[in-house]
Formats: sequence, structure tokens, C-alpha cells
Amino acid sequence: MNGQMSGNKKSSVFSKNEHVQELVRISGELADIGNAAGLLSWDQETYMPVKGAEARAKQLATLAGIYHEKLTSLTVKQLINQVKKLKKLNIYSAALLREIGRVYRKENRLPKKLVEELSEVTSRAFDVWQKAKKESNFALFEKDLARVVRLNITAAKLLREKGQTVYDAMLDDYEHGLTEKEAERVFREVQPKLTALAKKLSKITAGADSKIANKGYKWEKQWGLGMRIIKDMGYDLEAGRQDTSAHPFTTGFGTGDVRITTWKNESDLRPALFATIHETGHALYEQGIDPRLERAILGGGTGLAMHESQSRMWENMVGRSEWFWKKYYPQAQQAFQALQAVSRQEFVKAINVVRPSLIRVEADEVTYGLHIIIRFEIEKDLVRGKIKIKDLPKIWNQKYKELLGVTPKNDREGVLQDVHWSHGLFGYFPTYLLGTMMAAQIFATAQKQIDVTNLKALREWLRVNIHQYGKVYSSSELLKRVTGERLNPQHYIDYLEEKFAKLYNPQVMNSKVTMMMTSV
Amino acid sequence: MNGQMSGNKKSSVFSKNEHVQELVRISGELADIGNAAGLLSWDQETYMPVKGAEARAKQLATLAGIYHEKLTSLTVKQLINQVKKLKKLNIYSAALLREIGRVYRKENRLPKKLVEELSEVTSRAFDVWQKAKKESNFALFEKDLARVVRLNITAAKLLREKGQTVYDAMLDDYEHGLTEKEAERVFREVQPKLTALAKKLSKITAGADSKIANKGYKWEKQWGLGMRIIKDMGYDLEAGRQDTSAHPFTTGFGTGDVRITTWKNESDLRPALFATIHETGHALYEQGIDPRLERAILGGGTGLAMHESQSRMWENMVGRSEWFWKKYYPQAQQAFQALQAVSRQEFVKAINVVRPSLIRVEADEVTYGLHIIIRFEIEKDLVRGKIKIKDLPKIWNQKYKELLGVTPKNDREGVLQDVHWSHGLFGYFPTYLLGTMMAAQIFATAQKQIDVTNLKALREWLRVNIHQYGKVYSSSELLKRVTGERLNPQHYIDYLEEKFAKLYNPQVMNSKVTMMMTSV
Repeated sequence: MNGQMSGNKKSSVFSKNEHVQELVRISGELADIGNAAGLLSWDQETYMPVKGAEARAKQLATLAGIYHEKLTSLTVKQLINQVKKLKKLNIYSAALLREIGRVYRKENRLPKKLVEELSEVTSRAFDVWQKAKKESNFALFEKDLARVVRLNITAAKLLREKGQTVYDAMLDDYEHGLTEKEAERVFREVQPKLTALAKKLSKITAGADSKIANKGYKWEKQWGLGMRIIKDMGYDLEAGRQDTSAHPFTTGFGTGDVRITTWKNESDLRPALFATIHETGHALYEQGIDPRLERAILGGGTGLAMHESQSRMWENMVGRSEWFWKKYYPQAQQAFQALQAVSRQEFVKAINVVRPSLIRVEADEVTYGLHIIIRFEIEKDLVRGKIKIKDLPKIWNQKYKELLGVTPKNDREGVLQDVHWSHGLFGYFPTYLLGTMMAAQIFATAQKQIDVTNLKALREWLRVNIHQYGKVYSSSELLKRVTGERLNPQHYIDYLEEKFAKLYNPQVMNSKVTMMMTSV
Repeated sequence: MNGQMSGNKKSSVFSKNEHVQELVRISGELADIGNAAGLLSWDQETYMPVKGAEARAKQLATLAGIYHEKLTSLTVKQLINQVKKLKKLNIYSAALLREIGRVYRKENRLPKKLVEELSEVTSRAFDVWQKAKKESNFALFEKDLARVVRLNITAAKLLREKGQTVYDAMLDDYEHGLTEKEAERVFREVQPKLTALAKKLSKITAGADSKIANKGYKWEKQWGLGMRIIKDMGYDLEAGRQDTSAHPFTTGFGTGDVRITTWKNESDLRPALFATIHETGHALYEQGIDPRLERAILGGGTGLAMHESQSRMWENMVGRSEWFWKKYYPQAQQAFQALQAVSRQEFVKAINVVRPSLIRVEADEVTYGLHIIIRFEIEKDLVRGKIKIKDLPKIWNQKYKELLGVTPKNDREGVLQDVHWSHGLFGYFPTYLLGTMMAAQIFATAQKQIDVTNLKALREWLRVNIHQYGKVYSSSELLKRVTGERLNPQHYIDYLEEKFAKLYNPQVMNSKVTMMMTSV
């Protein structure tokens, strides 16, 4: 397998065996239904008029029902068994069997009643969470959250494989094969280092963004700069588009149609710009998958951590680097009055301020990981029943004090800030930090092999080494193939230390970095 | 049944019988699948990136397959038979039985192979038509058109009911119960009158639009004026939206989400504005349907002619009237430099120029009908095999000479102008003219009952008398209920004569019109 994998769109990579071919055909229909539902959801977040919500919910429910029926049919079961008997499946056919087996098992193990109850309970919990957050009152959310936790534990117990803990089963749903033990291993290693770095850097970088924050940045100009950058990154706008939504996201309906959204903020340049770059990182992944895989449930990218590695690499290792702004800062200065009196060096420092804060989505590269570790620890204890729901705000605040040195004034900026739990997404948060670590590890490898400051070259390297494979390999397999080692958090720490040392103490660092760059 | 019909959204209007309820449930799922496919098509015309086309076609094909499977299932057949046995069905349940029976029959009578062949052949024919039109060469399209005609005749023969001609079966697909005999009756009556009117008025109105044509009209201002007008018409923008597309259209996914599109032209005010008003006429119909009907395949409006009556009424009887511009002309003048030296009277004359022309979509209110009659006569002869495909351009040009006094210079502005035949849409054109006639008849009734210059009052009158019923009544039943008579083309002729007499000879007409307006 090499860079030519996606060369011939028409040939099939799967075994010619009739059962395999039939499985590919049914998978294609499942992909179609999933993609149709995906477009309905995209529209819901971007263009749907408010009164369309009720009918949209029904359309999505009907499609989900059809998907369920098709996936859990006797035909699929028989096909899976027939393909299992085949010897010497090629890696694509084997991956197809594995992936359809996974979704089949999941769809079969959860009774329809439980799925419906989960859907109802989380739908209600989401509404209640919104209200509770608005009123900054966790007590309002308590009962619903308890129900969501209970039902998710029930589901995880039905889904877990031999040897998995309940929380493992939850993690597995977002990142196949991930265990709490593995997450603990790497989180324990980075946590003290991040805490130390945050402490040191928050002093050094204090106030560095005062010249760019809370100024006027015309939306059309922000849009223009963002579009310019993502075109340079290699985002194919004939196979994608950008729109605005309440929260930025990426969604794809096949490799030929992968869309991103960003959010609008005219008083700060950073939110939209870095959301655009982040989402484009996700989108490049999906656009880069071999199109021959997408109809076999092997499109869409392997686990969420690998997906996040792509978005975070582009957002941070590229978008917040010094070299990146050598090219784009003159354009940014031309576009925005507010930047005219800000030097490039000042600007790069400003977009790299380290500041222990209360809100995860506003966190910098260093403290972000600590926000995730807090959630990971709470989730583990919640699932084990070690925490009473009503004590969550207290525990949350203690952990923030302990790891970040800050204390929420209220529930809104504390335990109620994230939407995830109201949706029943337990085990999701860890993938954010794991992805960040993978990003550093992958980027370090890329730096040894290519000139990463050439955006198109970086994109192509990622396509050849990661993107094209879709779900053929798991995140951990892929990481090992690309970097030669399993997840090693030291790359992340090295990256941070080097970056900030260079940024705030360039004299000392320059020689070392130059050496590294020329060692390519 | 009255204006309160849509008062209670939650109650069901259908019989409590379990079989009826089950039929409603399945119809709801069919509606969901249809609405999902509708959104996919809307997106294809508005926002989809070009490379999304291949996957989109597959998604739509899969949804069509699922729809077919669900509709033609044994369950539906048995339910239809069980409900048929019930006595005293209320009108809603009876309408449900009739409508699901119709789509069930159609879906069952056409063999899968024929449906697939039709889809393939028309897909190819559409591409070939585009090329032939571009090169203005009918000969290129000949073979494909012949295939499309042949397959559509085969399908119509399978679909037709006892007593229907082949062309009747085609007409029936777009306007249930319509026959060529009925279309002939009304078309024969209006044709000589339209020809005479066109001849007279084209002299009188010649050059009346020279002051407004080919000027600059800023798109943002056009958009603003259009939005202002459609809000005043009562288009609920919380249950709809406007976008741009290559050709204007309306599409709905339930009464809470009915969208329109318009097209952009900065050198003329008329194309976008009247497309916006026209499509809003369609959209008001769908927004006004009783929401309790929509999940029972009774939403979406009864036949195409009634649908077209709504769009044409708003576009022409309202949007091209003198009274309408008393309100909006000052705003239009303020928005567009080009109108500053044009009086309101001149403007209204300019948007009502009668000019026998070659292109249907650019035709005025008087000559439009003649364009339709030409197509109707050709379609009838085509279906009967009286015309050889290769003679179509010659016949087309003869008829244009005969009825409109103009001769196409080439195939592009002649027989190749419309997309319909390449899609296999035979029997569709007549609904455009029938709808126009219905519009005049309905508007004449409305004028007797309300002040039609009050747009909201007109909209509400239409909602109560027409929109709310969805497909409960056929177009012809509904027309008779509202106006007290069957389709009577004289209303259309009266409307035209009166309008143009008043517009171009106000002294003579004023007294008569004033009398009519006060007789309300």
C-alpha cells in the first residue's frame, strides 16, 4: 500500500467473493442512509428554519429506524458468518468484516426500548441542561443527568466485551480499542508536566494578547483570510464548503462532500480563524480517504482521537506557529486596522498566551489537557458510582483548584459548561487530549521527513500516511505504522517546551531549532 | 370544515380504526423518506459542492429504493384492503385511502426494470439535451428523445385506468383526473381569444419597457425588496427561507419548512422579483396546509394545476397589478437609480408588456398560454405516433408561426428550449395554463368576498378556502367548492381584457373597475 492507493477510483479493493461483494453493497446502502441523515443534521445546524425542527426530528428518527432494520437483518447476520468462514481475506475485506461486525453487534445488543429511552432521556436532558446553564443552577439538571448516567451504564454493560470495564466500553465507542488503563498511563505522565508548564508559562505570557483582544475585526475580512488559508492547506472547495453555525463542526457525506462550519465573532480574530483551521484539519482527513473505502463503512476516518490529531495539528502546530505567520501576517495586517500597531512577533505571542482558565473551549495548548484530565477523572468515578451526582459541582471546583489553580464562580462556568454529558457522551472527552498527543508525535515524524512549512506537502504527507486508509487500521495501529512507536506523550511535552522556549526566549533556542530543521 | 381546521395540531383527523392508524403511521414514514430526499435535492441545487454529485445520486437512489420497498410491501397491500372494507370513512381517511392507493398502484404497476430503464434513459437524455441545446442541434437529441417517448408511452399504458387514453394517463400523473378532452375543451376556447389579444396588445404595449430593461439593479437591493414583499404576503420565514439557484423552485419538507429559490440577474429587475413572488405563491400553499394532513401523504398540495394557480395568482394578478405598486414603487425607486426617471404608471406598463416571443419562460401573461397550447398539441400527437421525432423542429416552428407569428432562428430558441421532455415529463406543460385559468377564476371569487389588495387578507382567504385541505379534495373538486363552477376559461379572458384596457386606457375603464371594487 502506498500513495497510489486512491489512484484508480473504479477498481474494487475488496475480495471478489460474492458474499464479500454483497456485504460491500449493503454497507454502501447503510453509508447512503447515514450520509442522508448527515446532511439533514448539517442543514439543521446551518440553514433550517426553526419551525422545521419537529419534522426534521421525525425524518431523522425514520432514517435511524431504517438503518437499524437494514443493519440487524438476518441477511447481514448470515453474510457476516459466511465471510467469517473465508480464508485469507485481504486487509480491506478483513477491515470491512471487522467494522460491519462492530456496528452490527452494537445495534443488536442494545434493545430497541433502551435505544428509544436513551434518545428520549438525552433529548430532554439537553433541554434541561440549556435551561440550567442559562440559570447557572446545577440542581435543575441533577435528576436528568442521573438518568442519563444510569442509562449509559446499562448500555455500556450490554456492549462491553470480555475484559473491558464499563468505562472501557464507553471509550471504545469513540476510539476503538481504547481502555481507561491506557488513557491513565499517558494522562498520569503528562499531568504534572502540564501543571508545571502552565504555572511557568502563565507568568511569562501574561498580558501578551492585550493588544489584539476586544478590537474590531470585520467579518468579511475574517472570512476572506480564513478561506485563503484553508485553500492553501489544500482543502478542496469543489468537495466541501464553509458555513457558519452556533458551534463549529465538520461533517462529510462521502469524500467528495466534506463540509465545515465556523462561528462569527467580530471583536476577536481568534475564535473564527482557529475554528476554521481546526475544522479544515478534520475535513482534510475525510477528503483524503481512498474513495474506494467509503461505501464499505471504512470512510469517515478511524477513531476520534486520530481525527482530533488532524484538527489539532493544523490548528496548533501549524496555525499557531511562528513560521506560519511569516506568510499570512502581512495579509492579516492589511485586512485589520487593529493589527496595524502590532508586530508579527507580538501577534504570534498573543495567539499563544497560556492562561489557566475556567472554560475548556477557550483554553490554550498547555492548559487544555488539564481540562480534559479533570473530565476523565470525574467520568471514571461517575461510572463506578464513586461520585454522587449532587456532589459534582463541588468535586468539579476542587479539581479545577487543584490542577489549574482557578475556581469557578458559578455552575455555568463550572460543571455546566459542556454539552457532552447532556447528550450522554461519556468517554468522549479523553479523545481530545489523546488526539493532541498523537498530533505532536505524528508532527515530529513529519518534520523528519518533509518540510512541514510547505502546507501542500504536509497535507500530501498526511494523506499518504494517514488519511487514505480510512478505518482500515485502528488509530493505535496507524500511529505505530507512521511514527514507529506507540503513543508516547513525551513528544507533546517536548513540542510545548520547545515552542514556548523559542517564542519567549529566541536567542537561546534559535541554534537548536535551526539544527533540527536542517536535519531533515 | 372551516378555517379552524388547523387549530389543533395534536388531534388526529383520521378514523380511530387500527388499520387506518397503521396506514397513517406508514404514510408518515413514507413522507419522512420523501422529505429527506427532498432536502437532498434542495441541497444539490443550492449548496452542494460539485464533487458531491456522485455520492448524492447514490444516496437518492438508495432512498428511492427504500421508499419503493416500503410502499410495495405486503403490509401496505393488506392494510389498503382492510381499510377498503370499512364503512363510513370520514373524508380524511377516505382521502388517505385514495392517495396511498394511487401511489401504491403506480409503484406496483411499473416493473422495477422499466423504472430503472426510465431513470437511466432520462439521465442520459438530460445530458444529451444540454449538449444539443448548447450546440443548437436537435439532431443530436433525436435518438434519446425517441427512447424517452417510447418508454413513457410504455409506462403510461401500464398505468392507465379503464377509459383513459395514453396521454390521459400522463396528465393524470401531474393533475389527478385531468383528461386531454378536458384540456382541449378549455384550450380551444381560449386559444383564438389569446391570439387576438396578443396581436392587439403587442402593438399597444410595444416598447413600454425600454426605460427599465438592461439597466443596473444591485443584487442586495433586489434581494431586499423581494424579501420585504414576501414577508408582506405572509410567507413565514420561520418556516421557510429563500436562496439562489440556476432555476427558481419551491420545495417543502413538511408545512414547517417550505423553501423557495430565485435567480440572480443584475441587469434586469424582473426575473428575480417575479420568480420570488411566484415561488412564494407556491410556498404559501404548502405552509398553509393543515399540519395534521402532512404525514398521511395528504400534504404538498393537490395537483400541479392548483399549485400553479397559487404561484401565478401572486405573480400576475397581484405582482403585476397597478394597485400592488402603489405600495412598493416608492421603495423600488429608492432602491434603484435606474427607476428614478420612471413614473409608477410607466413602470407598471413596463412589467406588463405583451410581446409574442420565442421563449416560454420569458413570456408575458397573454402569450404564455399560447406557448403551452403549442406544447400540448405536439405532445398529444407525439404520444399517438402522429409525429416523427425528426420532424419536431419543423412542426415546432410552424406552430410558433401560426399561433404567435414568430419563427425561431434555431433549435436552441425553438424545440430545444425546455428541459421537460428530456426528463420524460409529458403531460406536465398543460398544468401551467390550467393553473393560470384557475387563478383567474379563484381571484374573481376572492375579489367578491374580500379586499384582495390587503395581502394578508388574501393569503388568509386562500389558506381557509384552498391551502388547508392539502390533497383532501382534487383540484377540480376544490375549484368547484371555492368558485361554485367548474373550470371556466372566460374568467381568464375577462381578467386580461379588463387589466390591459385599464392599464392602457384608464379613462374608459376607471368607472367600471371602481364599481367592481366597491361591489365587494
